[in-house]
Amino acid sequence: MSFSPRIRQLIDGLRGLPGVGPKTAQRMALHLLERDRGAGRQLAVALEAAMDGVGYCQRCRSLSEEDLCRLCSDPGRDDSLLCVLQSQADVWAVEQAGGFNGRYFVLKGSLSPIDGLGPEEIGIPALLASMQGRAVTEVILATNPTVEGEATAHYIAGLLRPKGIRLSRLAHGIPLGGELEFVDGGTLAHALAGRTVLD
Amino acid sequence: MSFSPRIRQLIDGLRGLPGVGPKTAQRMALHLLERDRGAGRQLAVALEAAMDGVGYCQRCRSLSEEDLCRLCSDPGRDDSLLCVLQSQADVWAVEQAGGFNGRYFVLKGSLSPIDGLGPEEIGIPALLASMQGRAVTEVILATNPTVEGEATAHYIAGLLRPKGIRLSRLAHGIPLGGELEFVDGGTLAHALAGRTVLD
Repeated sequence: MSFSPRIRQLIDGLRGLPGVGPKTAQRMALHLLERDRGAGRQLAVALEAAMDGVGYCQRCRSLSEEDLCRLCSDPGRDDSLLCVLQSQADVWAVEQAGGFNGRYFVLKGSLSPIDGLGPEEIGIPALLASMQGRAVTEVILATNPTVEGEATAHYIAGLLRPKGIRLSRLAHGIPLGGELEFVDGGTLAHALAGRTVLD
Repeated sequence: MSFSPRIRQLIDGLRGLPGVGPKTAQRMALHLLERDRGAGRQLAVALEAAMDGVGYCQRCRSLSEEDLCRLCSDPGRDDSLLCVLQSQADVWAVEQAGGFNGRYFVLKGSLSPIDGLGPEEIGIPALLASMQGRAVTEVILATNPTVEGEATAHYIAGLLRPKGIRLSRLAHGIPLGGELEFVDGGTLAHALAGRTVLD
C-alpha cells in the first residue's frame, strides 16, 4: 500500500506513540483527517509546546516547565516530609491518589548495576544535595517493591540513617477490593505480619 | 492532579486521538517527554503537514494531497473497472489486500434517510459525474453487507443499469481460516448458494 507522503508521514508519526501499531496508527490518521482536523492541529501545537518547553524541576527532578515545579513551589505543602520515587509516573499516581501533602524527589529509575545504573546515574547524589538546608524529618522511600527498588531504598536508607532522619517504606498488604484467594503468597504473608488491631 | 499547563495541554491533545482515554494519554505524554522527544517533534510536524496539506482527490474523492490522487493518476491501472466504496478505510483495506488493479470511488458513507443521508449527501451524483467520458465497463458496488450498504448498492445499480454497465457485488462466503461451526447462518446460506465446483 503506497500512501501519499503526508499521510505516510502522519501514520509513521503516530506509530511513535507507545502502544500504537500500524493498524491503530491508520485508524487514528483517518479519524483526524476525516472527522477532526481541529483535534489534529491542537495536538500538533500541544506537542510542539511540550517537547520544547517542558524540562525538569531543579529541586525534585520531576517534569516541569519552570525551574521549580508547582509541587516544589507550593507554599502549602509540608517541607518536613519527602517522598522519594522512581519515576514521574509514580509522582502522578501518588498525587492522583491524594492524601500526601509533602514534597517529592524523582529518581531516574532504580539501582541496577547490570544495566550500568549506579547511584550517580539514578540521581542519589542529587537527592542528598537537594536535602541540604531543608528541614526534612521523614523520608518515605517509595521505590517499587522489586529487587532493584528494595536495593535502592536500602542504599538510600544507609546514607540517610546517620543523619537521624526518620525513614519509611510504603505498607505492603491486600489491595483494596482484592480477593484473598487471588493475592500472591508474599503479599499475604506481609499483610498477616502487618495486621492491624481493631478497637 | 494539577499538571503544569503544557503537560495538561499535551495530555488533552492526545485524548483527541480515537481510543485514547486519560490514562493512556498520560502514559503517551510521559513516554514522549521522558524517552522520545524526537518522536514527539516528528509527530507535531507530521500532524501539521497532514491537517493542512491533505484534501480530497477530485476524481475519486479519496484522501489526497494532489488534485488527482496516486491511484487515479497511475497510468498502470485498469480504467474499465471501478470499485465503489463507503469509506477511505475501505480503499486502504482493498489496496492492502492486493489483487485489484482498477479505479476507486469513495462515497461518504451509505444511504441512511433517518440520519439525513440521501444520494446527494453521500456523493452519488459526484460518482455519476466522475464516470462521464470514462470507458468504465464494470462497477463493483463494494458497500458494506449491511442494510444501508445493500440499499446504497441497490440504488446505484438502479441508476447504472440503463447504461449497460456490468454491475457486481463482493462475494459472500466463509472467511479464510474461519470455522464452519462459528460462521453465522446467513453467511453459511450464502456460501452454500454460491458454492464453487471443483474440477
